[in-house]
Amino acid sequence: MKIINFAEQPSLVSQYMSELRDVEVQKDMLRFRRNLERIGEIMAYEMSKTMSYRNVDVVTPLAVAECQQLAEEVVLATIFRAGIPFHKGFLDYFDHAQNAFVSAYRKYREKENFDVFIEYIASPSIEGKTLVIADPMLATGSSMELSYRALLTKGDPAHIHVASVIASRKAIDYIKETFPADKTTVWVGAIDEVINDHSYIVPGLGDAGDLAYGIKE
Amino acid sequence: MKIINFAEQPSLVSQYMSELRDVEVQKDMLRFRRNLERIGEIMAYEMSKTMSYRNVDVVTPLAVAECQQLAEEVVLATIFRAGIPFHKGFLDYFDHAQNAFVSAYRKYREKENFDVFIEYIASPSIEGKTLVIADPMLATGSSMELSYRALLTKGDPAHIHVASVIASRKAIDYIKETFPADKTTVWVGAIDEVINDHSYIVPGLGDAGDLAYGIKE
Amino acid sequence: MKIINFAEQPSLVSQYMSELRDVEVQKDMLRFRRNLERIGEIMAYEMSKTMSYRNVDVVTPLAVAECQQLAEEVVLATIFRAGIPFHKGFLDYFDHAQNAFVSAYRKYREKENFDVFIEYIASPSIEGKTLVIADPMLATGSSMELSYRALLTKGDPAHIHVASVIASRKAIDYIKETFPADKTTVWVGAIDEVINDHSYIVPGLGDAGDLAYGIKE
Amino acid sequence: MKIINFAEQPSLVSQYMSELRDVEVQKDMLRFRRNLERIGEIMAYEMSKTMSYRNVDVVTPLAVAECQQLAEEVVLATIFRAGIPFHKGFLDYFDHAQNAFVSAYRKYREKENFDVFIEYIASPSIEGKTLVIADPMLATGSSMELSYRALLTKGDPAHIHVASVIASRKAIDYIKETFPADKTTVWVGAIDEVINDHSYIVPGLGDAGDLAYGIKE
Repeated sequence: MKIINFAEQPSLVSQYMSELRDVEVQKDMLRFRRNLERIGEIMAYEMSKTMSYRNVDVVTPLAVAECQQLAEEVVLATIFRAGIPFHKGFLDYFDHAQNAFVSAYRKYREKENFDVFIEYIASPSIEGKTLVIADPMLATGSSMELSYRALLTKGDPAHIHVASVIASRKAIDYIKETFPADKTTVWVGAIDEVINDHSYIVPGLGDAGDLAYGIKE
Repeated sequence: MKIINFAEQPSLVSQYMSELRDVEVQKDMLRFRRNLERIGEIMAYEMSKTMSYRNVDVVTPLAVAECQQLAEEVVLATIFRAGIPFHKGFLDYFDHAQNAFVSAYRKYREKENFDVFIEYIASPSIEGKTLVIADPMLATGSSMELSYRALLTKGDPAHIHVASVIASRKAIDYIKETFPADKTTVWVGAIDEVINDHSYIVPGLGDAGDLAYGIKE
Repeated sequence: MKIINFAEQPSLVSQYMSELRDVEVQKDMLRFRRNLERIGEIMAYEMSKTMSYRNVDVVTPLAVAECQQLAEEVVLATIFRAGIPFHKGFLDYFDHAQNAFVSAYRKYREKENFDVFIEYIASPSIEGKTLVIADPMLATGSSMELSYRALLTKGDPAHIHVASVIASRKAIDYIKETFPADKTTVWVGAIDEVINDHSYIVPGLGDAGDLAYGIKE
Repeated sequence: MKIINFAEQPSLVSQYMSELRDVEVQKDMLRFRRNLERIGEIMAYEMSKTMSYRNVDVVTPLAVAECQQLAEEVVLATIFRAGIPFHKGFLDYFDHAQNAFVSAYRKYREKENFDVFIEYIASPSIEGKTLVIADPMLATGSSMELSYRALLTKGDPAHIHVASVIASRKAIDYIKETFPADKTTVWVGAIDEVINDHSYIVPGLGDAGDLAYGIKE
């Protein structure tokens, strides 16, 4: 399994990450959502370098140009609700893609102990397609895994791209254990070492859903 | 209950509506989603004219200006999945707002007979706030009503704005029956007369969710 | 000549105006430019209500819908460089429009005494078309007038919409004197009473070009 | 001098290039401008990988994170009018950058013989800064060179990034001759071999300014 960590090579992603994490800057919800979108766009672009293309003769106003067009069928999946602005970034770039939405939540039994329930799924067939699953925070990796399992009811993808803004080390290990190694690529903005008793990534950035959309009751 | 129908006064909304409805133009998903966003933005702006403002002294680089800032707490609710681009338009304009997401679907028992199930809800308290519920298509109005009922578990809003791109006449009548007349305003891009056996609005535009995000399996 | 002043009816424009004017909030260039764009979008929409439309039968996936499409040829003109984000807002909404760009600057002879030079023009024919000239700040109105005169070399427009975020009272009077009263409409976010010795609007918001793009040498 | 040609590695840039070039697809001005913006965004991101960063301790809601922020002062320059949407892409990503605008045009003396005139310049000091000059089409490279010379009146940049969507082979050679080899990087979406008698790139895409903004008179 290939793990691509954007923190290893500084870029504008680093700039956006520092704004997303900053307890003052993140109060600007417009900028917070925009930074999630921009990281989604950039990950979409980096993923696109690993995809296959077909040669096409394109008629310009002056002559014929040899061009290359995306030859993979891409399905952009995300997990409600925090994933929406991040997914928007992927869709801004893969504007012809199909899309899938899944919802899952943590149901706490006690402080350190929770289950994840899948509530909602809207997905095309993913059989033989390139599946991107975008979720900004990978705390334990269990929501990602359950969403992936739910999506498997729609077919067997040719390749899986797991995309996240911040993942814990533990979540990365969990993805390695639970996703098919030969056809999964993981893309993360940063890997944080700690996950606390409430399953929050530390230092992380807080709750991405609350920061993007406001606190839930 | 006040019904504001944008079709009564031609504007750019009419232009975007004609593009959304056109069976050829709507194939461009980028433009389709963008048109839903733009109508959301414009409805947000028109709604904002009915809201209350507070006077604020703002320090400019040169002097003090008397300004007016929005004095209502706005919660932007939408219904998954078709509502996401439409909701994005509202959020582009009310960028400081809180947000609520609800999912509901039609479960057909037979051809003309279906129930609506609420699967997912993420919402702040809406007590005493201005609630906007945005859903692009109001076919029967039953999804809108059920979503509203689900949101009432989060408090009693001071005002409700129901926003839709196309509503059937039947749905408008249903909203009139089921929402509180004294504090509900309905905003629609157009009202179409017919609703067919499959509960599609005719002439309508087809399935807004499929056109924005691709066909579901 | 019709003068439409958005300050007379509070709306989201008031909210954006208060952010544009605020000496702290305006330091966020992303938000500053976005607010200019949003006011441009809203003015485009309000203008569109005054335009003419043609009835068109549009084929939907289900039937034929009577729709209305914009029947005027719109040319969106702006003045470099401060006008670019404001113009972007108009173009986001009138996405099929033609565009014109003019540059003009103030050449000071002494403190209170300056000329305006037109340096650059790129414009289609405006003969018989609807001309929008967007410039965020109307201090004296002389740049607007000179730009208009420059554009007249490209034909005689059917109607002129002068759009501005903040105008001084003096500039409004100047536009009234120098534009054809029977076919000009002026759209402003606010009218400020004072213009100082440096021809800055007070309280105004400072220099829109510097705030959007950084200080010029 | 380093030449980075995005055509050598297929990516979403290839997809956008094929849409920009296509004589049918390019008629959608909204998509045409959006594709210029997206290529600008992606080039901004790739450039950012070559820049320097400073380590910053950022306080998150939960702890302190080591982050990296851009340590170069970036000036985004463009050439009117065709450069505006391409520049918008760079500014969408380098949202804190300063900006410079230059205008230049070709004044034909006879069919194959023209001069380039600089009409307009608005620029901060570029002394010791990272200068990006973005112009979508590099036909001969002479506009780019003249714009660069005009900008040198504002100081001596530490590094120059020349960015273009399509360049002719001839223009690339001209940039190599006229820009400082030790501190210039050229970024292009494609290099086309031919430049015709009217100084159009073949196959190219036509006139980027006309396609983005409409034909000039």
